[in-house]
Amino acid sequence: MKKEKVVLAYSGGLDTSVILKWLENTYQYEVIAVCVDVGQEEDFAAVKEKALSTGAIKAYVVDVKEEFITDYIYPTLKAGAVYEDDYLLGTSFARPLIAKKLVEIAEKEGAIAIAHGATGKGNDQVRFEASIKALNPYIKLIAPWRIWDLKSREDCIDYALKNNIPIPVTKKDIYSRDSNIWHISHEGGNLENPWNEHETSIYKMSVAPEDAPDTPAYVEIGFEAGIPVALDGVKYTPVDLITKLNQLGGAHGVGIIDIVENRLVGMKSRGVYETPGGTLLFEAHKSLEKLALDRATTSFKKGISEKYAQLVYDGLWFTPLKEALDQFVDSTQQYVTGVVKMKLYKGTCTAVASTSPYSLYNEEFVTFGEDDVYNQKDAEGFINLFALPMTIRSLMKFDKENKDKTNKQVI
Amino acid sequence: MKKEKVVLAYSGGLDTSVILKWLENTYQYEVIAVCVDVGQEEDFAAVKEKALSTGAIKAYVVDVKEEFITDYIYPTLKAGAVYEDDYLLGTSFARPLIAKKLVEIAEKEGAIAIAHGATGKGNDQVRFEASIKALNPYIKLIAPWRIWDLKSREDCIDYALKNNIPIPVTKKDIYSRDSNIWHISHEGGNLENPWNEHETSIYKMSVAPEDAPDTPAYVEIGFEAGIPVALDGVKYTPVDLITKLNQLGGAHGVGIIDIVENRLVGMKSRGVYETPGGTLLFEAHKSLEKLALDRATTSFKKGISEKYAQLVYDGLWFTPLKEALDQFVDSTQQYVTGVVKMKLYKGTCTAVASTSPYSLYNEEFVTFGEDDVYNQKDAEGFINLFALPMTIRSLMKFDKENKDKTNKQVI
Amino acid sequence: MKKEKVVLAYSGGLDTSVILKWLENTYQYEVIAVCVDVGQEEDFAAVKEKALSTGAIKAYVVDVKEEFITDYIYPTLKAGAVYEDDYLLGTSFARPLIAKKLVEIAEKEGAIAIAHGATGKGNDQVRFEASIKALNPYIKLIAPWRIWDLKSREDCIDYALKNNIPIPVTKKDIYSRDSNIWHISHEGGNLENPWNEHETSIYKMSVAPEDAPDTPAYVEIGFEAGIPVALDGVKYTPVDLITKLNQLGGAHGVGIIDIVENRLVGMKSRGVYETPGGTLLFEAHKSLEKLALDRATTSFKKGISEKYAQLVYDGLWFTPLKEALDQFVDSTQQYVTGVVKMKLYKGTCTAVASTSPYSLYNEEFVTFGEDDVYNQKDAEGFINLFALPMTIRSLMKFDKENKDKTNKQVI
Amino acid sequence: MKKEKVVLAYSGGLDTSVILKWLENTYQYEVIAVCVDVGQEEDFAAVKEKALSTGAIKAYVVDVKEEFITDYIYPTLKAGAVYEDDYLLGTSFARPLIAKKLVEIAEKEGAIAIAHGATGKGNDQVRFEASIKALNPYIKLIAPWRIWDLKSREDCIDYALKNNIPIPVTKKDIYSRDSNIWHISHEGGNLENPWNEHETSIYKMSVAPEDAPDTPAYVEIGFEAGIPVALDGVKYTPVDLITKLNQLGGAHGVGIIDIVENRLVGMKSRGVYETPGGTLLFEAHKSLEKLALDRATTSFKKGISEKYAQLVYDGLWFTPLKEALDQFVDSTQQYVTGVVKMKLYKGTCTAVASTSPYSLYNEEFVTFGEDDVYNQKDAEGFINLFALPMTIRSLMKFDKENKDKTNKQVI
Repeated sequence: MKKEKVVLAYSGGLDTSVILKWLENTYQYEVIAVCVDVGQEEDFAAVKEKALSTGAIKAYVVDVKEEFITDYIYPTLKAGAVYEDDYLLGTSFARPLIAKKLVEIAEKEGAIAIAHGATGKGNDQVRFEASIKALNPYIKLIAPWRIWDLKSREDCIDYALKNNIPIPVTKKDIYSRDSNIWHISHEGGNLENPWNEHETSIYKMSVAPEDAPDTPAYVEIGFEAGIPVALDGVKYTPVDLITKLNQLGGAHGVGIIDIVENRLVGMKSRGVYETPGGTLLFEAHKSLEKLALDRATTSFKKGISEKYAQLVYDGLWFTPLKEALDQFVDSTQQYVTGVVKMKLYKGTCTAVASTSPYSLYNEEFVTFGEDDVYNQKDAEGFINLFALPMTIRSLMKFDKENKDKTNKQVI
Repeated sequence: MKKEKVVLAYSGGLDTSVILKWLENTYQYEVIAVCVDVGQEEDFAAVKEKALSTGAIKAYVVDVKEEFITDYIYPTLKAGAVYEDDYLLGTSFARPLIAKKLVEIAEKEGAIAIAHGATGKGNDQVRFEASIKALNPYIKLIAPWRIWDLKSREDCIDYALKNNIPIPVTKKDIYSRDSNIWHISHEGGNLENPWNEHETSIYKMSVAPEDAPDTPAYVEIGFEAGIPVALDGVKYTPVDLITKLNQLGGAHGVGIIDIVENRLVGMKSRGVYETPGGTLLFEAHKSLEKLALDRATTSFKKGISEKYAQLVYDGLWFTPLKEALDQFVDSTQQYVTGVVKMKLYKGTCTAVASTSPYSLYNEEFVTFGEDDVYNQKDAEGFINLFALPMTIRSLMKFDKENKDKTNKQVI
Repeated sequence: MKKEKVVLAYSGGLDTSVILKWLENTYQYEVIAVCVDVGQEEDFAAVKEKALSTGAIKAYVVDVKEEFITDYIYPTLKAGAVYEDDYLLGTSFARPLIAKKLVEIAEKEGAIAIAHGATGKGNDQVRFEASIKALNPYIKLIAPWRIWDLKSREDCIDYALKNNIPIPVTKKDIYSRDSNIWHISHEGGNLENPWNEHETSIYKMSVAPEDAPDTPAYVEIGFEAGIPVALDGVKYTPVDLITKLNQLGGAHGVGIIDIVENRLVGMKSRGVYETPGGTLLFEAHKSLEKLALDRATTSFKKGISEKYAQLVYDGLWFTPLKEALDQFVDSTQQYVTGVVKMKLYKGTCTAVASTSPYSLYNEEFVTFGEDDVYNQKDAEGFINLFALPMTIRSLMKFDKENKDKTNKQVI
Repeated sequence: MKKEKVVLAYSGGLDTSVILKWLENTYQYEVIAVCVDVGQEEDFAAVKEKALSTGAIKAYVVDVKEEFITDYIYPTLKAGAVYEDDYLLGTSFARPLIAKKLVEIAEKEGAIAIAHGATGKGNDQVRFEASIKALNPYIKLIAPWRIWDLKSREDCIDYALKNNIPIPVTKKDIYSRDSNIWHISHEGGNLENPWNEHETSIYKMSVAPEDAPDTPAYVEIGFEAGIPVALDGVKYTPVDLITKLNQLGGAHGVGIIDIVENRLVGMKSRGVYETPGGTLLFEAHKSLEKLALDRATTSFKKGISEKYAQLVYDGLWFTPLKEALDQFVDSTQQYVTGVVKMKLYKGTCTAVASTSPYSLYNEEFVTFGEDDVYNQKDAEGFINLFALPMTIRSLMKFDKENKDKTNKQVI
């Protein structure tokens, strides 16, 4: 009888190597290992080799960095979506893309199941599985950490030794990390007590602000319809643009946050995130919107951003609501074109100047002094009607409370 | 015939001195000058003296700093209200309080009108007048800048010379400023072109980040039910607490923003704001809420904050909606008690550690590894139901689009 | 060894009788049966008797009708909370109250667990269990329908026969129903196909509109601070008031809805609900708010209502967000005092007249013709500033698009 | 010297006839009268004739009924936009379309100004002028009711007599009305006291519910992507479809509302609206969305509907926010295809059955009993995680409050 196939989201680390073998041992599946390159630092050839040597019948390495940026990062940037005011969603929006690739390969290879190494306490299991269900509800999902008896790294090592799986010689990092071209996250270790200040030695993409240059740096970021396209007047591909901004931002300690966040699965956790280039882009984009969007759109878009961030965080990327929000956002971005000058200094990045051909900032109107375009007398009528509900309420209360109206004059 | 009285919001500057005389000349009013001390740097005795010497029949200086903090600043802090993501509303929430004092004095003095020196292009005229209408709809409002023929500072100087009003010898500041214990704002001058980087010489409360100490400073801010009460374990009065935080924040260049904002009256303007202590408080408060509020409350409160900020910015302080929002906010703040450790360095302030007796962060739940409190197997059921709408939609689409279901297995 | 105790939410029907016995058989628990009277039609003495005869060591009947109305129904009425535009939450808000009573008795009796008869597909299991967790996280929850092997009514009958549990002689209703003083719901049967029109024979509280009197009826409902207190000028207790309105509404076929709704657990279901008195109260309350609330509060409260309805539907009654929403709502209801005249006719109820001592409707302002209170000239200034963002955008577009400005005149 | 031209929104009634002449007399303008046919009952040939005989140099009658339906009514229907829960915006969305036609003719004719007959107290002046400013900021706006000395109908008659303007012989209606293909509104008269029940004699499009047939009628409305396209299986043009539904709805007294509403200009007013066909369409559309939209989209779309309704009511049709909302809405409407069976009876219309090829209602999931598609055991995990924030909070409170945990068992 022909064996059934399973697609495994494979990283080359101890956990997913153990899972690979465990899937064979437990279900007699043929395992197809898939490593999705979203920009993490990795020797992908070695990963592929290790998958095959551990028993995979096939191993894919899929470079999706550009798709990641254009179809996942930039829509979120345009939406201005930030989770709980701080988190730029670096891990969150990588998951649906990885899920999409896993489904594509499962469909192509005729695999009946997809397995992943996310634990039962985190958000990633939801993001993977919700995305896969949205794309193909007929694929079986296997999350070994929720099923097997292995409870710790030590259990994994034992399992690996018994099954001839090579064990990394490096000492186990005390932090749990996830990285891609947009960010790196750090959890665990002494971060688990929110009263501990985190150690700057954990940084991977950035220097500590204290170690950044004493002289500010500047970069001018050019946007077209909400999308960053140029740095200091030079056009870059998406991958090059973010890579350059990561280097620049990282060198100045920009984009480090340390937060307690609410996981979808009901608990709070604490993490440190480095998003150097991303932070520059979000700040610049926000600044450009201040020129290009009107007040009503700016205000209403905040509710859109909030919902967008929740959907992305919760793994609800492939949903009709997310699609509808994208349509709203794209409509607002038509005129978000221009240049923002960013200053980087000792851990901060600040938009210090901005310009747009479609700017709604109109110096004529704002200047103090005589002018033709704005009649200050209009303000009286405006205030009288704008405040009329308050006047009417106040009249009602004076009436009810029999207040003194001796200085009653003109309303 | 007895003359009618008008209450004038008086600052001691050229504009309101000219208005004082103009009210007498134009309407034959008796003018009662009222200078409200919200913490601006001022020689209030001299202001009072000047009012009387310019012709006021009476002059008040009213110190409302504590009321300002406890009844206007702290409710806004608890609400987390920030206008257009950046502006901490320093000028906005001072206006209704000043209006309240003007109304109180007008009622006490039997004045039939209140006059102010806000121009016809800005938000402040709306904030003053809407607040006054809400408090007493029978008081007449006079905004000379919308009425008279004076169009510029030069016109005012001419008027002053003709009317024996002393003219300040200081050179006219090219910036338009408003200050109080919470902040100082800067508008005008070369800021009117958003492509100009602002000059750091404009700062009044802060040093430039580049001039801040090379060594970080730390301060632990203690909150009770959302209100800051202690610094480094020592209790302070509201005025002392904010004064100390202003000094500390200012010395480290914390809390400077430079933004293009949407005025209520329909135009965009650009301003630089310094809010050193306030920025520390907002960041610390937000960080403490991350421990103390659950996810649903955190998310919904963002919409409350946004509306609160709009109401405050628009001068709608004395409205039923604002009152109802306060009730919501206060309910959420019951457990926002604890301490946040803030790090100040070169223009940044960061919450580096936090603790609360009511923290909802629960290390037991978040720790990786075996545990009794959380059953990882629960996650599968959670995901299956959480993602069920996506599964059902996906099933419908597979059905409609006659997609291949050959690897159909388990849903 | 002493047996452990379990509290069972007991209705006297087949299902919970089987559960009673099954809890004894399976866990050797002593069962305390609790029947909570929220106004359902029931012979409570018989229910109590049956519980004891089926094996319960103790049986409670708890009348909570008044608490149900004042602490659950009226807050929801004041909030204007309606789930998905139609459903008046009759089952939803009964669940947390029942849960509260179960917890109180469990704590008093020293029971270690609470069991209920809700199935694994519905909302009620979530409402019960979430409420219990919120009130006492140490109580074990048992939902037999998710655990045991019985899969149908037939299985239950077999189990009952084997265990000497009396089986109701009445033929099984093809509909699944839930009723209390507020409403009755109907699900299942031929309703499961949304293309079937429901049969009017299912109604329990109402006549079909076609069978209602040919002459309209009127009732004047008096409110104080958002709470209904009087009918046609006569004060009633909460229970009497709702009972009377149910009779009146039911006689005129008022308050029947037939909807497809989204369950919390991810699927859609279809139900028919009768809420005769409740519909009258919601319509009257809404109408009174139109007099008493200003525009901004009215509009913002809609978002509050929507969230409130979601929380109630989802069983999130005992949450900090729900408490904060209540504070918001109560603040808005201070002046929702007055009388609304309702007309009932052939399935409809309409507010035909309303009056309030705190009405913000002001005939003086609205009358066409000369007046002192409103200066029509103010409107020009209002429009000019209100529409200024559009003007500025239009100017920008004319400029960019080099449109013809030959009829350029005044802006 | 050549005279300047003004475009006048002309109805043929007394007011706009007087305005026509007044514009000539006051400004020496040449008047181009434009009567826009949005479906109001009118003898348009006579209107044109009267304009010319009153002095217009040119008179247009523009039939925009189809554009009105497809570009204004249907987008609002798809958005589900209802102002303050009741008003279907019949007058509101006609205004921007009329404004657009006025601008087009003004640009074509080289007119420098547009005049209209809306008063200074209502919403329509804002809707007209804001729309015109958005479309062409260089056109001057003239609102005679805010300018001239005529204060009443009597003043107008005097003016007409002096200027040889024919005066309608019909007795002045005591109600102020606006009608088009979508609705008719009634204001004024005894409606100005909200405690008066309105008289059914005012109806123009409908019979009173009491006068409707004793037998219900049914109609099946077919939608494609949110747009109504067929009645009882037969396709109709937009104009025919709405005309037919108006006849049907009107015959059954469907769609009459009587409300106090908040005008944009700050006061409340009371009106009666008849929208027979529109009410049928809104109810049917809402019902179909219950099949076709998922829970998250349904809920979020309510906030979109609310904002959409505000924008339409306030005359903010030609704004970027409105455009962005349209994009959101259109995205949600892709699958809003199907048929809804409506029952009309004595003033009510009810969706009694619905079907959609893209229905997300899935009978398999909802059926009680054994099934493969839904595992009831999943619910336990779902509830445990869904309610985890409540559990954690409850644990914290037990801990803080030293509550008795003697019946502590399993969390």
